[in-house]
Amino acid sequence: MTQVAILGTGLIGSSIGLRLHEKRIYPDLTVVGFDRYRRSGQAAQKVGAVDRLVNDPQLAVQDADLVILSAPVLSNHWLMEQIGSALKPHAVVTDTGSTKAETLRQARKHLPTTVSFIGGHPMAGKIEVGAEAAESTLFEGARWVVVPPSDAPERSVNAIVHLAEQMGAEPMFMDADEHDAYVAAISHLPMVAAISLFRLVRGSEAWPELSLLAAGGLKDSTRVAGTDPAVAYDIVVTNREQIAHWIDRLRESLGELKDQLRDPANDENLFKLLAQTELEYASYRAGKVGRESATQLPDAARFDFSSFIMGEAVKQKMHEITNAQEERVRERDAERRVRREI
Amino acid sequence: MTQVAILGTGLIGSSIGLRLHEKRIYPDLTVVGFDRYRRSGQAAQKVGAVDRLVNDPQLAVQDADLVILSAPVLSNHWLMEQIGSALKPHAVVTDTGSTKAETLRQARKHLPTTVSFIGGHPMAGKIEVGAEAAESTLFEGARWVVVPPSDAPERSVNAIVHLAEQMGAEPMFMDADEHDAYVAAISHLPMVAAISLFRLVRGSEAWPELSLLAAGGLKDSTRVAGTDPAVAYDIVVTNREQIAHWIDRLRESLGELKDQLRDPANDENLFKLLAQTELEYASYRAGKVGRESATQLPDAARFDFSSFIMGEAVKQKMHEITNAQEERVRERDAERRVRREI
Repeated sequence: MTQVAILGTGLIGSSIGLRLHEKRIYPDLTVVGFDRYRRSGQAAQKVGAVDRLVNDPQLAVQDADLVILSAPVLSNHWLMEQIGSALKPHAVVTDTGSTKAETLRQARKHLPTTVSFIGGHPMAGKIEVGAEAAESTLFEGARWVVVPPSDAPERSVNAIVHLAEQMGAEPMFMDADEHDAYVAAISHLPMVAAISLFRLVRGSEAWPELSLLAAGGLKDSTRVAGTDPAVAYDIVVTNREQIAHWIDRLRESLGELKDQLRDPANDENLFKLLAQTELEYASYRAGKVGRESATQLPDAARFDFSSFIMGEAVKQKMHEITNAQEERVRERDAERRVRREI
Repeated sequence: MTQVAILGTGLIGSSIGLRLHEKRIYPDLTVVGFDRYRRSGQAAQKVGAVDRLVNDPQLAVQDADLVILSAPVLSNHWLMEQIGSALKPHAVVTDTGSTKAETLRQARKHLPTTVSFIGGHPMAGKIEVGAEAAESTLFEGARWVVVPPSDAPERSVNAIVHLAEQMGAEPMFMDADEHDAYVAAISHLPMVAAISLFRLVRGSEAWPELSLLAAGGLKDSTRVAGTDPAVAYDIVVTNREQIAHWIDRLRESLGELKDQLRDPANDENLFKLLAQTELEYASYRAGKVGRESATQLPDAARFDFSSFIMGEAVKQKMHEITNAQEERVRERDAERRVRREI
């Protein structure tokens, strides 16, 4: 018999629970669930993510071979403190939190040497939260970052790699600092940028008018401003310096773009920048990631911009842009086909 | 018989054409279409947005009572230059472009005094572009900004207000500078911020790894980096100073957030800021806009943060956050119900 404890039964924890049941990867599996929020635990049980619900984290882990901490980061640290003395010898403990360096420190501090902790971070999610939104296919095709401490036993590392694979994800090893630097760029920076942007516009005296006008652009760009504040807070306070570094870089990048767009003499470069960005973005959206993403893009912006002055020469510009754009449409169609095939 | 010319038959122009046919607001309507891109014009005709396609803008407008310029901004200006001498006396010309001050100047320059120009900007859109994505319901519930020059005849203004209403939108009068300042905040700033953010991360040496990890957050926050470069360019060069102003404000706002998150002594304020932002964002997403948006929000962040230190007191914090969050869940449920009813 195998017992798995899932502590924190939101979207991620419940999706893991559903998949464990569906794939039957462990013999005679029992999943015991705990969540600080009664309602969240009950929802997980209702959708079938956990078999049994307990109201004490120690009860959840005392017979567990595998313990999955899938609450927000600081709650995971608090959970470690609670379960340290109750863990079964040789249990493997992992987490799904958004930052890793501080979590590995907390694990060393609170967990006994009779168990092993292997950090984890499945790079998947969706807009909806909670067990009601859980899906056994949530992790399919996603990367699952595995962060073993330097002294981790091979058996325990393998257990988490196996778990990630059975979830349908692709395991990817990283050390904790590397992980935290990367997610600061791709996840935490977009979040704080959305928060800044939304607060700025929301704080404007003209907000009553602005909010009436705001169509799709603002909603999309600021969606992650709607991140659960407990999740956002835990991320920010456990990755302060990396996030601060990327905020500085974004401020520089915005400053450069501002200088470029204020100077009419720079318009040719500005157009090329916009065209190149759109191409790279389309390529990213189309799933060209990893090494493939570094290959040369077609240069649709390579037209003779020097003829672009308002008046007669515009016709020529139009013609050239037309050709570049029609090529672009063909590429887009091709990309869409590729995406469907994947 | 009424003839309407639609110059620029992309998503917006074609959606207008579809709605004109569906609502039969003009007797014996004929819609004549022109687009610089042959393929785009053909697509509009295929979906039934235009009745007849011509390959010269002058031919499109010569018998038209109403002329709708629905290409990107600079293309609309070029179109005005082309059609100026061919327009029928007393025709009403309008546009759907993203900026207004320069467009009104161009209209004064290129259009004869025998016609009137009334600026327009429907605040609607979707991710997909082109006539294939057109919908007669695209403008339902959206604001349609109407920007009449100071000397505009009442009859012409009424014609455009009537058009907006028949499209299912709510007309909203503004002057050109006010419009350009507002859209700089809610539309152009999110676009340039997305471009800066995407370029920054895409330009990182670690992009091959970053792109593998990037889940939803980056894609959402940077979606408008995929704006058609011709559209983006035209916006930026016709609204440079307003956009530059908002970029500066965003850089300041990011700098303040950075200072707050780097200082552990400020953690209580940081949590409150995140909680307040999430509440305001949820309210905005739930459709509380205009005057209603200024009403007091429930203060879910009002818990005793002073007890929040790692260790024993965390339990107390957890309990308090739990209560605030459960209240939040109830609010969200209520908001969802409201949204469905609208």
